[in-house]
Amino acid sequence: MENKRRGILERLNAGEVVVGDGGYVMQLERRGYVKAGHWTPEAAVEHPEAVRQLHREFLRAGANVLQTFTFYCSEDKLEISGNVTNITGAQINEAACDLAREVANEGDALVAGGVSQTPCYVTSHSETEVKAIFKKQMDDFLKKDIDFFIVEYFEHVEEAVWAVEVLKTSGKPVGATLCISPQGDMHGVPPGECAVRLVRAGADIVGINCHLDPLTCIRTVKLMKAGLENAGLKAHLMIQPLGFHTPECNHTGYLSLPEFPFALETRSMTRWDIHQYAREAYNAGIRYIGGCCGFEPYHIRAIAEEVAAERGFLPPASEKHGLWGAALEMHTKPWVRARSRRDYWENLLPASGRPKCPSMAIPADE
Amino acid sequence: MENKRRGILERLNAGEVVVGDGGYVMQLERRGYVKAGHWTPEAAVEHPEAVRQLHREFLRAGANVLQTFTFYCSEDKLEISGNVTNITGAQINEAACDLAREVANEGDALVAGGVSQTPCYVTSHSETEVKAIFKKQMDDFLKKDIDFFIVEYFEHVEEAVWAVEVLKTSGKPVGATLCISPQGDMHGVPPGECAVRLVRAGADIVGINCHLDPLTCIRTVKLMKAGLENAGLKAHLMIQPLGFHTPECNHTGYLSLPEFPFALETRSMTRWDIHQYAREAYNAGIRYIGGCCGFEPYHIRAIAEEVAAERGFLPPASEKHGLWGAALEMHTKPWVRARSRRDYWENLLPASGRPKCPSMAIPADE
Amino acid sequence: MENKRRGILERLNAGEVVVGDGGYVMQLERRGYVKAGHWTPEAAVEHPEAVRQLHREFLRAGANVLQTFTFYCSEDKLEISGNVTNITGAQINEAACDLAREVANEGDALVAGGVSQTPCYVTSHSETEVKAIFKKQMDDFLKKDIDFFIVEYFEHVEEAVWAVEVLKTSGKPVGATLCISPQGDMHGVPPGECAVRLVRAGADIVGINCHLDPLTCIRTVKLMKAGLENAGLKAHLMIQPLGFHTPECNHTGYLSLPEFPFALETRSMTRWDIHQYAREAYNAGIRYIGGCCGFEPYHIRAIAEEVAAERGFLPPASEKHGLWGAALEMHTKPWVRARSRRDYWENLLPASGRPKCPSMAIPADE
Amino acid sequence: MENKRRGILERLNAGEVVVGDGGYVMQLERRGYVKAGHWTPEAAVEHPEAVRQLHREFLRAGANVLQTFTFYCSEDKLEISGNVTNITGAQINEAACDLAREVANEGDALVAGGVSQTPCYVTSHSETEVKAIFKKQMDDFLKKDIDFFIVEYFEHVEEAVWAVEVLKTSGKPVGATLCISPQGDMHGVPPGECAVRLVRAGADIVGINCHLDPLTCIRTVKLMKAGLENAGLKAHLMIQPLGFHTPECNHTGYLSLPEFPFALETRSMTRWDIHQYAREAYNAGIRYIGGCCGFEPYHIRAIAEEVAAERGFLPPASEKHGLWGAALEMHTKPWVRARSRRDYWENLLPASGRPKCPSMAIPADE
Repeated sequence: MENKRRGILERLNAGEVVVGDGGYVMQLERRGYVKAGHWTPEAAVEHPEAVRQLHREFLRAGANVLQTFTFYCSEDKLEISGNVTNITGAQINEAACDLAREVANEGDALVAGGVSQTPCYVTSHSETEVKAIFKKQMDDFLKKDIDFFIVEYFEHVEEAVWAVEVLKTSGKPVGATLCISPQGDMHGVPPGECAVRLVRAGADIVGINCHLDPLTCIRTVKLMKAGLENAGLKAHLMIQPLGFHTPECNHTGYLSLPEFPFALETRSMTRWDIHQYAREAYNAGIRYIGGCCGFEPYHIRAIAEEVAAERGFLPPASEKHGLWGAALEMHTKPWVRARSRRDYWENLLPASGRPKCPSMAIPADE
Repeated sequence: MENKRRGILERLNAGEVVVGDGGYVMQLERRGYVKAGHWTPEAAVEHPEAVRQLHREFLRAGANVLQTFTFYCSEDKLEISGNVTNITGAQINEAACDLAREVANEGDALVAGGVSQTPCYVTSHSETEVKAIFKKQMDDFLKKDIDFFIVEYFEHVEEAVWAVEVLKTSGKPVGATLCISPQGDMHGVPPGECAVRLVRAGADIVGINCHLDPLTCIRTVKLMKAGLENAGLKAHLMIQPLGFHTPECNHTGYLSLPEFPFALETRSMTRWDIHQYAREAYNAGIRYIGGCCGFEPYHIRAIAEEVAAERGFLPPASEKHGLWGAALEMHTKPWVRARSRRDYWENLLPASGRPKCPSMAIPADE
Repeated sequence: MENKRRGILERLNAGEVVVGDGGYVMQLERRGYVKAGHWTPEAAVEHPEAVRQLHREFLRAGANVLQTFTFYCSEDKLEISGNVTNITGAQINEAACDLAREVANEGDALVAGGVSQTPCYVTSHSETEVKAIFKKQMDDFLKKDIDFFIVEYFEHVEEAVWAVEVLKTSGKPVGATLCISPQGDMHGVPPGECAVRLVRAGADIVGINCHLDPLTCIRTVKLMKAGLENAGLKAHLMIQPLGFHTPECNHTGYLSLPEFPFALETRSMTRWDIHQYAREAYNAGIRYIGGCCGFEPYHIRAIAEEVAAERGFLPPASEKHGLWGAALEMHTKPWVRARSRRDYWENLLPASGRPKCPSMAIPADE
Repeated sequence: MENKRRGILERLNAGEVVVGDGGYVMQLERRGYVKAGHWTPEAAVEHPEAVRQLHREFLRAGANVLQTFTFYCSEDKLEISGNVTNITGAQINEAACDLAREVANEGDALVAGGVSQTPCYVTSHSETEVKAIFKKQMDDFLKKDIDFFIVEYFEHVEEAVWAVEVLKTSGKPVGATLCISPQGDMHGVPPGECAVRLVRAGADIVGINCHLDPLTCIRTVKLMKAGLENAGLKAHLMIQPLGFHTPECNHTGYLSLPEFPFALETRSMTRWDIHQYAREAYNAGIRYIGGCCGFEPYHIRAIAEEVAAERGFLPPASEKHGLWGAALEMHTKPWVRARSRRDYWENLLPASGRPKCPSMAIPADE
């Protein structure tokens, strides 16, 4: 059945909006299946029902892509974490592919195999060793039925380029996202230059994920786009930012916030923040629009609802959501009924209920 | 097998801490299965896998009780909502009992049948009609295997008393929680008097749920406790507050906040707020400690971790949680490593990242 | 000439609103003439032009009373401070009387001799010694031409009662204000009981000054009023609160705030806050309405403008003030012109421009 | 006598730090002598004692320069305001010169004649007409004894250049400050280019005043400095910023804030903010360091205390100020005593006491 499904490039080439999925590790941490600080994905083997359910919620929220739950799933990272003594990375990768495929087939979604930064890059800085790790992961994925690859959460464009180079040998499309700020990657390579290097390495789609809030990530993707244009290159653009407000962050993103990772609640975006994000991403020419840490299913639904006109349909989960608060019009309290309209929610400045807390923190890297 | 399980009163009489579960409707709204504004539980029939998974997460987080997902599941409420045209309340109630029982049996949890306020009370104010509704729900539950009843989310003690009177005819234990403020119920009956009336009606456990934040709810339960003591009555105490900060709320609770129900993110409690809550609840003599709207699985885990010494064990989900941030001690960033200790998180005042937003709102009922 | 002027009781008995003056020590600290931490009034001798000018500004702003600049002017306090080695308390008291009289005679104002708490009370707790200090100050004042006395800034009603008892021997009217919270004085005497004791000691006017913000002080004066009514006593009511927002303060008032005394700027009240205060004080039956620390001349003008209808006139300084922003209607920026109306300023929630600061502090006595 | 005093350029050429004075119009508005919205200086004639006293406070706080109180004192502006029907601009200018001179002679201060933007520039845009206005003001000043000129509060560098060109014909030194943002003047001329034009027109000192907060103004002066260096030009640098926090302001500065002009209190800088400002200004190579609206005498004292080591002396007003809170060490409350040290005040994040207010506003020009 999945061979009838149109591929990622087919969709993007046709100008369609592709809605990505949300963040797995942070949401599964809150659900009890991932250890914060390590963030390894052994739940794909240990608790497949939990991963399957989250896949389903993102699908139902309108996601066109389900990423395999394989974040940080290189053998070196798994070993460091100490979380899995009797499960191999290969087992996790394969189980994760099966889960994503099973749920993707319940709808019109594609499966993307995800590969992320390795500890080995920083410790060895050996192209051979790092590429060998990526090759091993790729081989796991290729035993299963995946549609394309996403190289994501790279702080150094050099390592991301190595990953792209490896994964392109599969013959499948490759998307590549860095977790960098508008100032560039950790070696100071500016976003425009990063994009150029990724596309020259073979990436079909480039963009940004994680570390910073949506509007900041859009700024970075715009710089990537400009870099590509200046170089006369072409690629699709994608974005999967944090679902948290991080206005005061600098180079190292939300890792530098005092609230990371156990007190980020108060920075969480509302669904209305996501509407604004999705529209601005669309207006910036980005067509693959998803989320990373902090994006729960209802945030993905908000993307899908914002671009419903462009896509021509609402996601399944909208059957349980009055658009722009419409379902409140029958509420028993008159003042709640008065909130069943778009401009109320668009203009609301939500209070934190925390008068002893500031509105901006002092980042650790300041 | 469940007849070997010790009952709710057996546990409370033995002085054990009973950890409740968290909030279903608001969490399932975010997962895409409940319609905000109506908050009806048809997902028990339509998407049992979603309800089952959330039960499992609460169980894994340490809950000793799973409440049936039957909030607002009276026929009159379901009809008003318009959400279910081909499913009856009885079907939902029965499906919900089966789901809770299935998951409860995976661990050491009890199943509580939940009954909440009816629209009929406000429109008819007829004891006969309202009691007939409660009787019908009770009969649904009694077809299934539940351990006790929880009467919850009542704004008028009179209606809660009627519910208790009906449910006591089942012969099963009954807990009763009101969603009121320290000022009393909507007719101005003070919390102490409310508690007295509920216990005289037959409630075995009394307390507060929803509408206000944990520390406020503790204050109200203390007033209930004092009322009982003054009247020479005895009952167990329970509490299932909001997982949101609501310092500025008055009588009508979080319904009066401008952020209700679609922009409450920034008020969400951290796991560290919950530690403080659980300890203060325990110190106030409350032994049934759970949560309501805003309580996700990791909040329940935080209760279970705070009272781990008293209970003698950690919950299953703690295998994926370094206590007090311990798992951060191997983080690559030195400043994140420095957060792997209790006093860091206890003293943190988290920033909202929203400098254009106030820290307190003006409630609609002010 | 001053014998033609109507006395304080004559005015209050006639139901007139008496506008008090603002705070001297904190304003003269900012102008460079008072040492914070000590707050002694030697400027009356050292820099009379500075004290005279501030008197004039309060008079021009609408004050009916000028208090002598004699705060903390007992010999024991002056000695502790070490600020004056060649000036006696008597010299300061007398110079201060002359300055107040000189300016009062430029308008329709009365001169009130001010007496405040003594270090001796806490160290010796000797009625004889403390009364001797008050007697000495009274004798200084009686050499000069003052209209009545104000006993102010007492944390213990007992010491205030001693002061009233001494000053009543002068035959002049006495007003008495405590710097206490709604919880009562430092010995736990509730405000109602404090008021009763002060009136029984001979005070003609009782109320609250300093330590807490206007709306909190109004609450305390209401408790004093209720106490008097319950005891069948009568007295005029006065209030001279802080010009700072102190919502989180407890018993010890703004002394407990981390910002005291050198970072209180961000808590300063606007003129619009003062309009609200003056109206609520008036509505509470208080007829002597002034200010303490933080009240600058324009705050006093705001009181006078709010009660202009009741008094029948605007103060001189209103010639340089368009009521409710009226003078903005010719501003060059259209958006500033739009602010020349009452509802704009009444509804404005002013931003602090300090995103890394909280909106409430943790008081030192919490 | 004044011919013994060293001139402004003599001091700056010798590398001395020159401390400027603070803001007159906004402070005298609060004291009751200036009408907000118009901001004209007729008080120099109507209430000379008030202007004299404020001059004295700035002198006592350490100012080396007293600016004549002649803001907006062109005939066209005075006529528009309607504030003075029987006083001419010439009368005000001359009275203001006398007042500044009288007080300057009480210490070691210079008198600077101040000239600011004219309504005529915007309405006529005629170089001839605008220059005639400046010539008339200059002639008023030259009848009196002033030491140099300050051209200030110009939003368009073109008009400021015209003013400099006129005033240079007097033979006296001229300082020129624009009220612009780092983005440039109202016609989009960048700060570096503005500085070049002003110096080429004859300005001896260039810099920024008003409209934005200290740290923003320092950024703009740095851009001016860089512009001059690129052009191979030399000039002294000066700065007289707002005493308010304005982090969210754009091009039009604090005029765009919802709080302008009647609710700026909560943005006021503390003396400790000013220490930081003075140090950063000094480090940026700026040697004429003063303030504008919002700078009260104690803010000027804070500049003088911060640069006391560089200047070799403390200002007179420091006799009433324990450096860095030293005078608190004898306070009766132990927690206040604990504040008598530099690091306490440097690290304090002061709370606003206004939980219903945001920390940043949405500027009107956004």
